[in-house]
Parts: sequence; structure tokens; C-alpha cells
Amino acid sequence: MCRFLVYKGSKPIILSKIVTEPSHSILTQSYDSRLRLDVRRPHNGDGFGVGWYTEPELGPDPCLFTSTLPAWNCANLERLAPKIHSRLIFAHVRATTEGSLAENNCHPFVHNTLMWMHNGNIGAFKYVKRPLTASLDDKWYHSIKGGTDSECAFALFLHILANEEHVDPSSTPKGGFGAKTLRNAMKKTIARINELIRTSIPPTMTLSAIETRSLLNFAVTDGHSVVITRYVSSKTDAAASLYYSSGTDWVEDPKHKGQFQMERRDKASDVVLVASEPLTFERHNWLAVPTNTIITISEQTVDVRPIKDEFWDEDPSIERSTGFARDKGLMSKAPGGAMAVPSGMPTPARTPEPERGGDWLERQTTENFKKKLATLA
Amino acid sequence: MCRFLVYKGSKPIILSKIVTEPSHSILTQSYDSRLRLDVRRPHNGDGFGVGWYTEPELGPDPCLFTSTLPAWNCANLERLAPKIHSRLIFAHVRATTEGSLAENNCHPFVHNTLMWMHNGNIGAFKYVKRPLTASLDDKWYHSIKGGTDSECAFALFLHILANEEHVDPSSTPKGGFGAKTLRNAMKKTIARINELIRTSIPPTMTLSAIETRSLLNFAVTDGHSVVITRYVSSKTDAAASLYYSSGTDWVEDPKHKGQFQMERRDKASDVVLVASEPLTFERHNWLAVPTNTIITISEQTVDVRPIKDEFWDEDPSIERSTGFARDKGLMSKAPGGAMAVPSGMPTPARTPEPERGGDWLERQTTENFKKKLATLA
Amino acid sequence: MCRFLVYKGSKPIILSKIVTEPSHSILTQSYDSRLRLDVRRPHNGDGFGVGWYTEPELGPDPCLFTSTLPAWNCANLERLAPKIHSRLIFAHVRATTEGSLAENNCHPFVHNTLMWMHNGNIGAFKYVKRPLTASLDDKWYHSIKGGTDSECAFALFLHILANEEHVDPSSTPKGGFGAKTLRNAMKKTIARINELIRTSIPPTMTLSAIETRSLLNFAVTDGHSVVITRYVSSKTDAAASLYYSSGTDWVEDPKHKGQFQMERRDKASDVVLVASEPLTFERHNWLAVPTNTIITISEQTVDVRPIKDEFWDEDPSIERSTGFARDKGLMSKAPGGAMAVPSGMPTPARTPEPERGGDWLERQTTENFKKKLATLA
Amino acid sequence: MCRFLVYKGSKPIILSKIVTEPSHSILTQSYDSRLRLDVRRPHNGDGFGVGWYTEPELGPDPCLFTSTLPAWNCANLERLAPKIHSRLIFAHVRATTEGSLAENNCHPFVHNTLMWMHNGNIGAFKYVKRPLTASLDDKWYHSIKGGTDSECAFALFLHILANEEHVDPSSTPKGGFGAKTLRNAMKKTIARINELIRTSIPPTMTLSAIETRSLLNFAVTDGHSVVITRYVSSKTDAAASLYYSSGTDWVEDPKHKGQFQMERRDKASDVVLVASEPLTFERHNWLAVPTNTIITISEQTVDVRPIKDEFWDEDPSIERSTGFARDKGLMSKAPGGAMAVPSGMPTPARTPEPERGGDWLERQTTENFKKKLATLA
Repeated sequence: MCRFLVYKGSKPIILSKIVTEPSHSILTQSYDSRLRLDVRRPHNGDGFGVGWYTEPELGPDPCLFTSTLPAWNCANLERLAPKIHSRLIFAHVRATTEGSLAENNCHPFVHNTLMWMHNGNIGAFKYVKRPLTASLDDKWYHSIKGGTDSECAFALFLHILANEEHVDPSSTPKGGFGAKTLRNAMKKTIARINELIRTSIPPTMTLSAIETRSLLNFAVTDGHSVVITRYVSSKTDAAASLYYSSGTDWVEDPKHKGQFQMERRDKASDVVLVASEPLTFERHNWLAVPTNTIITISEQTVDVRPIKDEFWDEDPSIERSTGFARDKGLMSKAPGGAMAVPSGMPTPARTPEPERGGDWLERQTTENFKKKLATLA
Repeated sequence: MCRFLVYKGSKPIILSKIVTEPSHSILTQSYDSRLRLDVRRPHNGDGFGVGWYTEPELGPDPCLFTSTLPAWNCANLERLAPKIHSRLIFAHVRATTEGSLAENNCHPFVHNTLMWMHNGNIGAFKYVKRPLTASLDDKWYHSIKGGTDSECAFALFLHILANEEHVDPSSTPKGGFGAKTLRNAMKKTIARINELIRTSIPPTMTLSAIETRSLLNFAVTDGHSVVITRYVSSKTDAAASLYYSSGTDWVEDPKHKGQFQMERRDKASDVVLVASEPLTFERHNWLAVPTNTIITISEQTVDVRPIKDEFWDEDPSIERSTGFARDKGLMSKAPGGAMAVPSGMPTPARTPEPERGGDWLERQTTENFKKKLATLA
Repeated sequence: MCRFLVYKGSKPIILSKIVTEPSHSILTQSYDSRLRLDVRRPHNGDGFGVGWYTEPELGPDPCLFTSTLPAWNCANLERLAPKIHSRLIFAHVRATTEGSLAENNCHPFVHNTLMWMHNGNIGAFKYVKRPLTASLDDKWYHSIKGGTDSECAFALFLHILANEEHVDPSSTPKGGFGAKTLRNAMKKTIARINELIRTSIPPTMTLSAIETRSLLNFAVTDGHSVVITRYVSSKTDAAASLYYSSGTDWVEDPKHKGQFQMERRDKASDVVLVASEPLTFERHNWLAVPTNTIITISEQTVDVRPIKDEFWDEDPSIERSTGFARDKGLMSKAPGGAMAVPSGMPTPARTPEPERGGDWLERQTTENFKKKLATLA
Repeated sequence: MCRFLVYKGSKPIILSKIVTEPSHSILTQSYDSRLRLDVRRPHNGDGFGVGWYTEPELGPDPCLFTSTLPAWNCANLERLAPKIHSRLIFAHVRATTEGSLAENNCHPFVHNTLMWMHNGNIGAFKYVKRPLTASLDDKWYHSIKGGTDSECAFALFLHILANEEHVDPSSTPKGGFGAKTLRNAMKKTIARINELIRTSIPPTMTLSAIETRSLLNFAVTDGHSVVITRYVSSKTDAAASLYYSSGTDWVEDPKHKGQFQMERRDKASDVVLVASEPLTFERHNWLAVPTNTIITISEQTVDVRPIKDEFWDEDPSIERSTGFARDKGLMSKAPGGAMAVPSGMPTPARTPEPERGGDWLERQTTENFKKKLATLA
């Protein structure tokens, strides 16, 4: 039942406007029974985290606030959120399966200027953990403080950034490491995880007894560029849900408290939001990110590209099954699905999964976005 | 969304068998979206408490364990529950409206041997709080540590016990204060709360602007007798739901983990359970306590009597509305109600509210209980 | 063992520079055994709070961060402090006697733009609490969430501000309520507390059996002016310790991490610090505030005036005993006192208590401050 | 500044009599500035844990209660301790250097019936952690939840128990695994840690730059036998302090609350206490455990033996330096040492370290203990 949210804007937004105030914020998503699908007992509970970049004079690394309290119970979050503003925010609500309830296990994870979060799980992690950590340089091995697969994936990303992209993750280059460097390291991280899963299962185990599929919705930023994936290591399943929206402003309806929407006054893209679930009930605000793609946000421009590996299907007519992500509590409910929303309550409209491949591979500007919406609507 | 639970047995039960293990325990009730009706944002969150009496050599006062964590997130509760056994247990899960998230606001409340919990709210508490606390002797005034209406009600009960029942609540009489004394003090506490509400609303306020109805499901014990109410200060509304079950043993189905049931091998009543919601999905196990009655448990015998005050209706054919308690999240869903339970999952069967007055006013033994069940089924 | 700290500057300071980084910060004071005098068991533990005003576009009310964790254990404080800057900061570390360990009991307390903290205790609070709260208007009565005497004193201050200074404490006048208004309300609050103590002790009690002396080091601000008292309701005792320092900048010695000092480059006063204990070991940096005085900080100008009530002594040669404040753990150790500081560690120099009355009643500018220091040194 | 405590008795003791009530309990040791030597900032804070075995009908595994709160701040501990009794109790107060403040890092650690705690640190852990965990079987590798060296040592102990003592640590043999088995596994665990340190330092590092000395005061039990070490991997340093006491009863002086002492009415040994620091100020109650020895408690009989490895010195006249353990805050102050205890307060008497080798190698009964005390006094 993890959920995450990324905000990137040309001007700062007040944290509460995306985290605590929207009636369908990720915080609300953490308790609203109408929106929860995961009916299993939440063994490791909630916990949440918010990370944001401040004005440059307060340093290039992000500030972090995490708690093992349920997000909607945290008085400090209620008080801090309206008093913090930032151009780049990560937020995460947690209810997962690896790692116990502990501040060390709360996302986002931070190393110097780099910030990381994850929605999903590494397949067969019980078998992968040891070879994964064994492969890391000392520095990244020792950076792991908690027990989550997500933090291990971040350590692997940092290791790859250092060894294969040849940058020092602890350095602070002006303008960041570059979107391309982050994207390359991200794709290599996913490839390495897939490889580790392939090579780590003991031969005595029948593969069918172990769940080897990974759900890898990762988000990483260096304070400048943001790279986000929607990914599943399967050719037939859909990944955990992911949506994005962009426009000129993110504003509250003055007549309806908590009802926010994305304004699009002109062609400019000043605000980008990426989230596990739409933050508004406005059908036209949100576009589903296709399974097995990688998003790059530079300034406020969104670039969506396929991850063409062994789990990619060139045939856009193939429909992936949402059952796996759904089982893990990581899928938005299909619109018009079986679990009815109480009447009188507007249903969050979700565009059907456009698993049609090629047509979204151009650079996303607000204009393109509008065009696409026009096509889909 | 408060829930409470009382266990009283002739032999000790392991805490986990009623608190953490049943698939429909009060702990489960705190997160299971299928069973939650209160869709409002839970402003003050969860928190929970368990109180139990130990072997006599460890003292006559109960032991208490409380936490502001969600009950299902508390590693210490998971570890303690299977290692504690007791003949008399109170358990409470909290998500209420008065008093912020704080250990001081967690039920049960304890004074020496006396233990208290509450499911509901005092009407117009904003107006009642001041005259209520002003009326207390210093000792009870200063005993209030938190901000809940429930703790104020307990202080009032202690004050009445001392001043009108003429016993010292801080004393430890052998065998306790007696069921009759506790019951009398309880009834006077409810009467005083009603009187305070009547006299405290400023004349300038129109009554319709203030919610004056109280939902007073109280439970109190001195370690020997237990007195529990199901009460609403209204002639037309039903009180917060309350059920009980009694039998010879509370056992887990060896074939279905988490499926407990009340065994009734003979006429003896060795185990009594009283709870806001049935702990099992066995229709025949639970009997609904009628609105505006007071239950007394002495040994393992259950006595149910009406509270014949201004909110009592002699006419048993009158049906009370469940809307008010439902609004407060304090009502079990009616069987066959609008919010469907996912198919394949047995629905907790609940006897319809037998708001028919007189027939349950006798002493409840297991035999009577069986007869009644036969009638109702 | 409470400690508090006020920062007011013409430009923002990073929170960590006064709260977490100084080697003798109030945070350090919460655990450093060399500096602790209170050897009693700290029954109610630590907990702490920080309040600060943000840039105006984020609203006129302060942001608050509190925790029941020991300040030096709080990862969130460590992460937030270097990322927050403000022109006006309150910080408080708690280990006191009234009110249990709970977030509700952490200082500072906030109402709209007003922020309050307290170092000390109200005498005979057991007797005073009830008449004090009874005297409050409903709005302020219900504003009390926790169990501390300090929060009751704040509610009384708000009540007096509304009823005797005739301003609405919930309003947000441009430029604040004015230093004079806050000072008057503060003096009346202290007078009312004294009066309540006088009139609340039951006649059957011998006064000698009850500790009626109050230690009232209060700090209040509306985001513009700051009013702070050092006060004891006794003619022979010294109040809890209080020091202040002002200058042009608060800077870290580049060669000694954690060694901060107050720079005084010219006559301007750009920075004012007021604290229970000096934050540096620099003798010349700190001036002791005399017992029973009230400090007003407008812009960065400090005004110190006597509180001329029944506990004021015109004779400046009278020496007050530090025993009472010492017993409560609220007195800095006298320099050269009995508890030696490990050798090799510079002793925090403290100017002897200048209990000489009249000579510090002028407006304090940095220049005056320097002159005074020259006289005292 | 870690401290631990073991109780083993022929009859149950109430937890509070050793944990919360003694005026010099390990809980008191966690805040009493007179007794603290570690003046460094406690980077990772406190936290504590208690583990105890219940009556057999509640299962053979211990119950655990841990918290990241300071022990003296924990209301639940205050309430549980007087209501729990046990024949075998481990208690631990933490303020250490490896692993952050988290419940996962609180001692004792438990696997099925086995319970483990540690006072000290593994030398060069930064280098040892990876080869140590790499050497473990999957089962023990995955049992590690937190980030402490202590938990890694426990995992290594379990691995050795399984692989070299050929017992299944997850089994529950009647009467436990046997003292000899536990002692052998413990000695092998220490030997393996020493070997890992020797072989793990990269050759490019000069040894002088890395602290390779380990302080290994371990305690382990299976609910029947207890094995405890006082050990340092150095031939010239003393280990972290460790004391024990045995007698017929552990009783409170009826005239002095909090003053407990060990009664010795006859030759029987009914009660054994082992602790990092004496729990009483009675000189005759406590015997220092010599450096580099292993204690075994079977029933209530204490057996003390040397650990004759490369750090053992046959020459009993050699005096070991206490500086290293002192630096780590793991050494009781020498009686009459430099940091004076306030006058009027009886100094906890500690027998001088009897680093004389052979004479304490017999089986310790109360009689032997008395003889030895007579010799030493």
C-alpha cells in the first residue's frame, strides 16, 4: 500500500498543498477505506517521509522529515507542512513487507544531494539481498542503515553511479549530475536487480515456489533532474500504478476546500506532479504512465521513454494483467470497478492504461500533454 | 471508531487469544476497511490500551499497557500478549474526537484497583467539562491527567463512589466494593452527566446548534465485579453497539487459525466476553445488549437491567434509529447492509437489535442464554 | 532542569547555529552531566520544542516542532535544524514536575501568532489550578490541551490580553500587538498568579506545609516584540537564572567547531540572545538578567525594567539566596562552585548576579551593554 | 554507557525489585550524573530492553519488552515491572556507538528460546561486518533486523551453535541445550570474532589507525543455563566492568526505600545477580568478575573460568589498564577515584579487580563466595 508523490515546479509550492490539504492526498490515501485495496493485515504499518530542497543558501542537500507514526496522526507534519515551501519535493507513505516499522526504513533515503524512494518490491529479495550487498563497494555497503529492499536498491544505484557513470555521488556538481547520468544509472540498477534475481535462486528451488517478479517504481533526484520509473520484471503483468500531471499552476478551488486542480493557462509547463494515484478527481488532469517506462523531468519538461529490456513488448496491443500489482496493493482501482465509491462522492477518474506503446515517446510539453488528453478523452 | 472488549473468566485466558489472534479481534477492527464505517478523517488517530489483573501476590491493582501507536503496529503488544494471562481483562482501541493523540488519553484509566473505559462521547462536552470538573473533590479533580471526556467521566464516577456510595475508591476491600455499589455509582454517574448537559448550555445558544446527545458505553471493574452500560441520552436513537457471549470455553478452531468460538459444553458459565462488535463470525455466539441497559458481571454470571430514566421507553415495539451511533462510527453494520463484504468472506452475523424491552431482564445464565438464542435464531 | 532560549535578529539565523551546534547549546545542557545540578530522578523526562517565524508569505503564525524524545536523540531535529532559518526563534528543553511526558506538555505553546514558554513553576499549583482555570473565558479555558502549569499561565495571559488589554489574541494586527501591550499583560499575569496563590490555600493548611513560591521565567512574543521575565515570588530568593547577549553577529570560531561567540563590530545591535544559561564559555559575552525584572526586545533593542511589586526590594545591597532555584535545578552553577568542571575544559564564566537594582534600568543598546560589561569585569 | 543485568533465582522475583526500585538500578545508572563517566555526547541515545521467561504453560521462549525511550521515561515499564515475575531475567540499558536509535537495535535479542545481550563493541566492526555476515548460513543472515554489532554477534553465535555444536537453535529441548554447549559456542564466537578482526583489515591500512580491540561482555541463555563473559581482546587492558552477587534472598531494607541487599542466611544459593555495576552500595555484596573469564550459571550455581586464548596472561601479578573500557564509558569508577561522589552519599564499594588468575577457578557456591569475600575484605 505504499504510495509516492513527486512535485517539481518553477516556483516553490507550500508542502501542505500537495501533502496534507488535497482531499485525495497521499496522506488521505493512507487511511481512506474507499481507496484501499490491500485488505491484508498491514504487518509493518505505516510510517511516512517527506524530503525537499531548500533555498540554495541552506545547502544543496535535501531536508528530510520521517516518522513511524501514521502520517495522519503526526502533529509535527501538520505544523511543518504549511510552513515549508520548495521547488522539488518527494513524499512517501509506507505499508510494506520488507523491513520492520522503524525510522531507518522510512523513505525517502538520502545521500548528500541525492534522494531516493521506491513503491514496490524486489523479487526474491530473500535470495538477492546477500549477493546484492556483497557486490557493493564498502562505502555503499556501510551506507545501509535499515532493512528494506528499497534502501539496498538505492545503495546499488549509488554504487553504479560511482563505478559505471564515473561520478562521485558525494560530490555536489553545479546543476547536478545531469538527467542522462541519473537515467543511465537507474536503467543499469534495474538491469542489475534483474540479473541478481536470475542468478541468485538456489538451483534446488523450483522457480514456481518463489515470487521473482519485482515491482520497481523508483524515483531519484539530485535536486535538479528527477528520474522516475514505472516498471515490472514481467512481460505479462502491469506495474504498480503511476500517473502524472503538468500545467501552469496547482490551485485549490476557492469554493471547495481540499479540491485542487492543475491549471493550464498557456503552453508553459511550470508544475509537474507524478504520483502513485491521481491527487484529484479531475479526469482530465492525469495521464497514466505506461508500464516499463522511465520518466525524466528536467526543468519542468517531462520525457517518457520505454525501458526496452527482456520485459518489453513491442506489440502495443498486448494487454498486461493488473492482478499482480493489485495483489500487492499497488494498483489504483480500475474506473467503474467492483468496489463502489459511496454515491454523492465524485469518483477519481483514471484514464485507462494506455498500454499502446509508441505514441508517447516524444518529449512531453504541456501542449503535447493537452493533445494527448484530447485524443484519449 | 472506538471499540472495547471485556473478558471475565473463572480461569485465566492468554491475552493474545482475545486481543491479537482472533481474525476479527478489536485490533483487526482498528484497520480492516471492510468493517470500518467511519469514513471521516480520523483526526486524533488510534492508540490503544490493555488492562488486566494479575495473580493476587502481584497486588490487587491492574497492570496497564497503553500506546499511541496503532495497535497492529505495536511490537511490544505482539510480544506481551501471548505471555500474559488473566481472569479479567479490559482492552480498548481508540479513534475519537475529544483529547489529542497522547498516552494520557488512552483507555483504560486506572485508580488503585478500579479500571474504566468508554466507547462514545459526552454530549455538549465543551459546555459540560467546566461544571463537571468544578463539581469534583480536589482528589478527583487532580486525578485527571489528559483531555478526554472519558477520563472526566471516570473522575466523576470516583467522586460519586466516595460521596454517595460512601466507600473510599483508594481502599482495597477484600472481594471488591460489591457489584451493587459499582452499579449504583454508574447509574448516578450517567444521571449526573445528563443533568450537567441540561444545565450547562448557555441560554443564548439554541439547543439545535449543539449536539447534546451522549453515547455512554462505559465499563468499570474493581477486579471482582464488572459493570458495563450500553446507553444513549435519547429516546429515539440506538446506543453504540454492544454484544456479549458466554460459555464454558473460548477456543480456536484447530483447523482455521484465527477462527475462535465460544464453546458451551454444559450449563456452567465459565467465560464471559462483552465487546463493541462480535469477535467471531458465528451468529449463535453473540447476543446484542439492548440500548439503555446496564450489565453486571459477578463471578461469571451476567445480569442485564434497563436504565429506567427519561430516555427509557416502556414500549418495546419502538424502534430506535441507528443513524446517530452510525455517524459517530460506533455502530456495527447491520447484517445485509449497503456496504458489501467481499464475497468469499463470511459475514459476521449479528442478531438484529432486540429492542423489545422486557424479556431479557432476568439473570443471564448460559442456559437462559441458550434459550434466548433458540428464540431469536 | 528546564532551559529556554530566545533568538531575535535583524537577519535570519540557521536554527542549528543556536540549537544543535554550539558545544554548550540548550540541547547539550539536557544531558551534559558537568552542567546538570538536578540530581533527582527526572520523573517526567525530557521532551523539547522549537518555534520559529517564517518568511511573511508563509503566514504570520509561528511553525512549531516538538517531541517527547530527548532533544539529542531526535533525528528529525538534527535534519530540520540546519535547513530552517528565522529572525525569531524560541527553543525549550523540558524536565519538569507538572504534567506528564506528552507532546501536549511540550513548550513553546502557540495561539495564532502568539508563542509562549516557561522555565520554572507556579507555587502551590495544586491549589491554584482550579481557581485559575475557573477564572478564564471559555475560549481560553478550552485552549488548554495538556497538564502543565505553564500552559495554564499562557491561557491566563491570553485571557488578560483580551479582557484587560482589549485586543483580540486571535487577530493578526500588522506589526503585532505592541511591546507595551504584551508587557502589561505579562505583568498582570504575574500579579494574578500571585493573587491566586494568596487566596487559594485552604485556611486549614499551614502555609509552611505548602511551597507557595513561584519561579516565573516567562517568554512571550507575537512575532514582532518579545517580552521575557526573570521572576520569583519571594523577597529573599533569586529567580531561575537568565542571561542575555547582544551584538552584530553570532559566529562560530572557524578553528574550533562548536565554539560560537557574539561579535560586536560596531554600536549596532543586530542579534539578541536570551537564555537560561550562557551558550558560550566567553565571560564577556553574557550579562545576567537581575531577579524580578522584565525584558522587552523591540527590533533588536533590549529594555530591562524592574517588576516593582511586593517582592521587589529597593535596597540594591540585599543579596538574594540562590538555594531555592538551585533546588529546582533552575540555577546555573556559581563560578568556582563546589562541583568542579573537569580540568582542561574552560569554565563558562558567569558574571556575578548584579542584584544592585537601579543601574540597569536604561535602554540597552550594544554600547550600553559594552559599558556595563567593562564596569563589571 | 551500556549496562546489563542478569537475574537467576530458584523462585521468581518481581521485575521492579531489580529493574526500577533499587536506588542504584541499571535504570538509575542511565541518568545519574554521579555515576556516569561517559561525558561524550550520547550520539545514539538510550533505549532499553527487558526479557524474561514466564511460567512454562505460557511457552518456553522469553517475553520481551523494548523501547527507544529513555528507561526512566517509560510509563509502560513503570507499570509492567511490578506486575511481572520471573526466575530468569535479562535487562539492558543502551547508549552505544553502532546502530541508530531504533527498536530493532535494542537488546536483548531473541531467537526462539535463546536470549542474548552485549555490553561493549566489536573492534574494527566497519571491516568485520561484511565478512562476518557473509560467513553465516542464510537462516542466521536473514535473522539480522537491525544495525548493531551485538546482533551480528548473536547471529554468529546461532550459526556456530548449529554448525559446530550441532544443535538446532530453533528447537526446544527439555532442559535446554546444556550449559556446556552454550559455553562452547560462546567461546567459539569470541574466537571467530578475533579471527575475523585479524583477517579483515585491508593491508593498506596501518593497524594503528584502526581500533581493533573488542570489549565483549556477552550474556546468553536458553531459559535454563546462563553463560556470561567479561572479555577484552587485549593483553594489557581490563574489560568492561562486571560484578556478581549470590545469596538466599534479594530484599529491600524495610527502613530505607530503594536500599536492597543480598541476604545470605545459609549455604544455599537461591539467587544470583550479575551486573555491569553493583546494584547496591554494600561492599560485601559484590564480587568483581576477573577480565577474560566466562561465567556459567546452572541452577543457581556459579562457575567462573578463564578464557585461555592469546589475550590471556598466566601471570596473575600483571595489572591491566582500565583506560580503554573507561574511554568507552564501560568501566565502573574505581573506589576513591578522581570524580568524587557528593558527601553524605554512601559510595558503592567495589572490590579491587582481583586480576590474580587461578584462585577463583573453582565452582562458586555461596560458601566459597563468603570465604573469598572474607579474604578480600
